Amino acid sequence: MTTQDELKQQAAQQAADMVEPGMALGVGTGSTVAFFIDALGDRNRQTPLNLKAIVTTSNRSKQQLEQNGFVVNELADVDQLDLTIDGADRVDDDLNGIKGGGAAHTLEKNVAVNSKKNLWIVDESKLCHRLGDFPLPVEVLPVSAKQNFAKFEQAGLQPAYRLNEQGERLTTHYGNWIIDLHVDPLPVPDGLAAYLDATVGVVEHGLFLHLVDTVLIAHADGTIERRNR
Amino acid sequence: MTTQDELKQQAAQQAADMVEPGMALGVGTGSTVAFFIDALGDRNRQTPLNLKAIVTTSNRSKQQLEQNGFVVNELADVDQLDLTIDGADRVDDDLNGIKGGGAAHTLEKNVAVNSKKNLWIVDESKLCHRLGDFPLPVEVLPVSAKQNFAKFEQAGLQPAYRLNEQGERLTTHYGNWIIDLHVDPLPVPDGLAAYLDATVGVVEHGLFLHLVDTVLIAHADGTIERRNR
Repeated sequence: MTTQDELKQQAAQQAADMVEPGMALGVGTGSTVAFFIDALGDRNRQTPLNLKAIVTTSNRSKQQLEQNGFVVNELADVDQLDLTIDGADRVDDDLNGIKGGGAAHTLEKNVAVNSKKNLWIVDESKLCHRLGDFPLPVEVLPVSAKQNFAKFEQAGLQPAYRLNEQGERLTTHYGNWIIDLHVDPLPVPDGLAAYLDATVGVVEHGLFLHLVDTVLIAHADGTIERRNR
Repeated sequence: MTTQDELKQQAAQQAADMVEPGMALGVGTGSTVAFFIDALGDRNRQTPLNLKAIVTTSNRSKQQLEQNGFVVNELADVDQLDLTIDGADRVDDDLNGIKGGGAAHTLEKNVAVNSKKNLWIVDESKLCHRLGDFPLPVEVLPVSAKQNFAKFEQAGLQPAYRLNEQGERLTTHYGNWIIDLHVDPLPVPDGLAAYLDATVGVVEHGLFLHLVDTVLIAHADGTIERRNR
């Protein structure tokens, strides 16, 4: 029997095998990404990949990359990334997703849109036919968060402030707040994305649409499924 | 002959007369707004206006409001503002405008969209038939500013980083950078706004479309013109 960690490790290994020498690489965060970083480090120690750059979206991944001997860059050091490997909170049948469970979707999206290809590694619990079943994170400027909240409420989006462990409003890396929208299922993701994009006070939302190219899915039965857009 | 300051003062007085007792008021920034604040203070000293709240977009206006005896609130203290008085860098024939010459358009827009009515006071030099003739400010997250800049350049939007007096990239109140777009005239403002809204990394742009209700225009011939949407 395959444990969940073994499954994640297998998927991470497949992802590491997809990295080509000389690439500029984006690396996300999460338990599967952690396996990926170690697999990439192993590969690089066997045969140096001479990666052009590595950009990551968290301090945790940065430390792990450095422990594996990689030099970590800023997005400003490259024109564009070749491939970004990350996880996702939900992935639908069209390979659209929701991210932001870790409140880092603003940085994650800035890395993703500036990558030629995006690869997500998820376990099958993250799959859904239509997006929903997970709160949609919206990062908002505190100055007008009250008005944004009221607007979302009136629109039937069931907003709730994300709280930290102390029960206070969670502050993001950029000094903003997160409002989680509870819409399940989430109808017409493109329409909701356009609405949120046009809402003054919204810095970035967690809808990742038309962005990912390949999803590696670790199934409970021990198989790794690969879906391409 | 009427000096420019006398003209601004007259326009500011008309704006102050449009404030109704008990209102929740938004107050912007600029030389004409400074005249407005003094005119409002005079009116309030003669007959108390009992304003429900006053929210402002700069420390400069905050200090002047307090010197005039007003208590300044945060936007979070009210559900919605009744009227916001501000200036603009350009106003076109449809009363759409460009703001952000002072790099504060993000806060200004958050205040404006949360105000039932918006009133701008401008002198006639700010008028244009079609928007343009002024760099369009776009506040961007530093993390992917390089990629946003390249994208704007490729789109023919002639981007330039806003610099401070030391010749370094100007940092906004929110810790971001400003990229000024040079498009003149600016075709289809709604289309450009949608493009910028959907661009990951853009916090807020300086297009204020379908937002202002009334514009008071101080003409060089000494007349004050009032245009309503």
